[in-house]
Amino acid sequence: MTINSFNPTPRILMGPGPSDVHPRILQAMARPTIGHLDPQFIIMMDEIKQLLQETFITQNQLTIPVSAPGSSGMETCFVNLVEPGDKIIVCQNGVFGGRMKENVERCGGTAIMVEDEWGQAVDPQKLEDALKANPDAKAVAFVQAETSTGALSDAETLCRIAHEYDCLTIVDAVTSLGGSPLKVDEWGIDAVYSGTQKCLSCTPGLSPVSFSERAQESIKNVKQRVQSWFLDMNLVMGYWGAGTKRAYHHTAPVNALYALHESLVMLQEEGLENSWKRHSDYHQALKAGFEAMGISFVVPAGSRLPQLNAVNIPEGIDDATVRSALLNRYNLEIGAGLGALAGKVWRIGLMGNSASASNVLLCLGALEAVLSELNAPIQQGVAISAAQKVMIAKGR
Amino acid sequence: MTINSFNPTPRILMGPGPSDVHPRILQAMARPTIGHLDPQFIIMMDEIKQLLQETFITQNQLTIPVSAPGSSGMETCFVNLVEPGDKIIVCQNGVFGGRMKENVERCGGTAIMVEDEWGQAVDPQKLEDALKANPDAKAVAFVQAETSTGALSDAETLCRIAHEYDCLTIVDAVTSLGGSPLKVDEWGIDAVYSGTQKCLSCTPGLSPVSFSERAQESIKNVKQRVQSWFLDMNLVMGYWGAGTKRAYHHTAPVNALYALHESLVMLQEEGLENSWKRHSDYHQALKAGFEAMGISFVVPAGSRLPQLNAVNIPEGIDDATVRSALLNRYNLEIGAGLGALAGKVWRIGLMGNSASASNVLLCLGALEAVLSELNAPIQQGVAISAAQKVMIAKGR
Repeated sequence: MTINSFNPTPRILMGPGPSDVHPRILQAMARPTIGHLDPQFIIMMDEIKQLLQETFITQNQLTIPVSAPGSSGMETCFVNLVEPGDKIIVCQNGVFGGRMKENVERCGGTAIMVEDEWGQAVDPQKLEDALKANPDAKAVAFVQAETSTGALSDAETLCRIAHEYDCLTIVDAVTSLGGSPLKVDEWGIDAVYSGTQKCLSCTPGLSPVSFSERAQESIKNVKQRVQSWFLDMNLVMGYWGAGTKRAYHHTAPVNALYALHESLVMLQEEGLENSWKRHSDYHQALKAGFEAMGISFVVPAGSRLPQLNAVNIPEGIDDATVRSALLNRYNLEIGAGLGALAGKVWRIGLMGNSASASNVLLCLGALEAVLSELNAPIQQGVAISAAQKVMIAKGR
Repeated sequence: MTINSFNPTPRILMGPGPSDVHPRILQAMARPTIGHLDPQFIIMMDEIKQLLQETFITQNQLTIPVSAPGSSGMETCFVNLVEPGDKIIVCQNGVFGGRMKENVERCGGTAIMVEDEWGQAVDPQKLEDALKANPDAKAVAFVQAETSTGALSDAETLCRIAHEYDCLTIVDAVTSLGGSPLKVDEWGIDAVYSGTQKCLSCTPGLSPVSFSERAQESIKNVKQRVQSWFLDMNLVMGYWGAGTKRAYHHTAPVNALYALHESLVMLQEEGLENSWKRHSDYHQALKAGFEAMGISFVVPAGSRLPQLNAVNIPEGIDDATVRSALLNRYNLEIGAGLGALAGKVWRIGLMGNSASASNVLLCLGALEAVLSELNAPIQQGVAISAAQKVMIAKGR
């Protein structure tokens, strides 16, 4: 069967990622491919490292993008730090904490689970109790920004507690990097990973990671070889390390790195704190719209991620019907619930380039239209003006 | 420090990959990012699977691109098929056989090495001897197309022997896929991996893999969970599997997959056998030019890969000086030697879009100019016409 070129109908991406990718980033991705050991490319790699350090707010030398999606960044952190027999405390309040547990176990470690309800932030007291009960734990792992629920946990406090018990900290910042405060050095995060397709608004496929000096010491002193050759930081560093002479490890995804570089340049132009504020402002506007409509949030106020808004599906409304209508009529993608929340919630992303005034209005207007047609129990005709008021007040 | 957008000087890529990427593929990569669960995207995924089946010449249902570079495809094959205690026969005749050994060992297996000199094809007799001596071996792994030397091994014969001893076969086809014959079903290959940045002429970053029914049985029956979560085919299949309902595993590298799709569409347009012939024809032309110049090949005639030409650096000539001159004056990249061959050979790729008449002439002309200036012991003024004659004879 003859297959033709693929020309997708463009979408507005307000799901849990990928987010809308700015044309500048797409154009960067289409620049001519050059060799992964080309001197020009080495300079660009150094720039990416510097820009990632600025974005993670860290001086960590070992700050690079892993050549695969966010899940591989998670795996990079675990395979390099967890050895058979290690005890790792994993805080779970959504899907991705569960994936951390999987990773610990596949490395031969034991995961001590600290469970919180999905939608709640991680409870620091529960972590402290677990640390007291497990004085031999090597590390504490948690998700700062749970993409499955939109819950924001207090990474600073959790890291402080972990360090009091002499544990390394492994933090999932897939959805937070670039969109809300994340201060790797100030908070004492030892290993952190993120994704490119969330608040960096880049194409999916890479996973920025950063390791503290303390984590690097641990990596250098592993008793056996890291179980993954591809993700072994001791080897990866030969390519991403200092100096102009780089050892071949694997072939870098050249054009994907062009895109990441451009997205980080754009973030530098905007300013990291300005980006955090933009995400917060549009979240306030979207929230005002939802509240006016009578749609409630999954996560309690105070623990909500601005960039990922999980809301409860109104009673009697079928999840897939609504998402299909939004996609087919408005080319608007919003996210379904994951795991235990499947069918019960929508996840609405305001990430990176998607955190814009036009997206807020489109989302509220389109959702109101579709829900009204389905006779959902919502308040009509008030959402847009509620959001507009917030945006005007914020100067947006 | 303020960092600007990256605008690389375009290069002609005649190293061991990436190869020249056709503008159609770069344009495809820059199409608007859509969601990885978008119905449009699911259709495109199915097309990629079909096109990859055609390219691997297989009916294997489990034929997909791994969301990371070729090295991760290698790791995918090993982590899914090798369990602790397994004995795997690894044939090594270059760098990548050594990487296979690393993978076996990191999976807790034992690698029984069958060694051949770098530059030679794998010796089937040595494999048979190893199989006789190790009747409990589970699999045989070898590199069909050694990118480090340009040696082509007889995959059909090696697989036949392996199956006689009831072993699975794991084959590295990173440099062969699309450029020279590779017949997965006919030859009885059980697990095969490749890369996008070689003879598919796509951007680097993905690794097509294919698993036979027999390999899939083995994967389903592993005694313990696959050590890599990211590369666990049991999980990956939930996303790439049949039907329209796909389970989220990781976020697919959407735009990289657009590029792969386009490169496979282009290969389908050309025809797989026409592509093999094109690679062979331009190899003959390049070879005629080198031989006229007095530059010799590393690999004996009969085992040479058309798409990767490793040639001996003329006596007294410094490797890096020549490669820098080619890059700086002609924007031409050729490859250095790897491992034991570093400083001794150049690797000249004629892969995918790089296998063209203009590249053959540029490479010979530029190399002759640089070597002449350095007073290298070569024959001047004859290479281009020798290559031209071959191309005219081939109708190129």
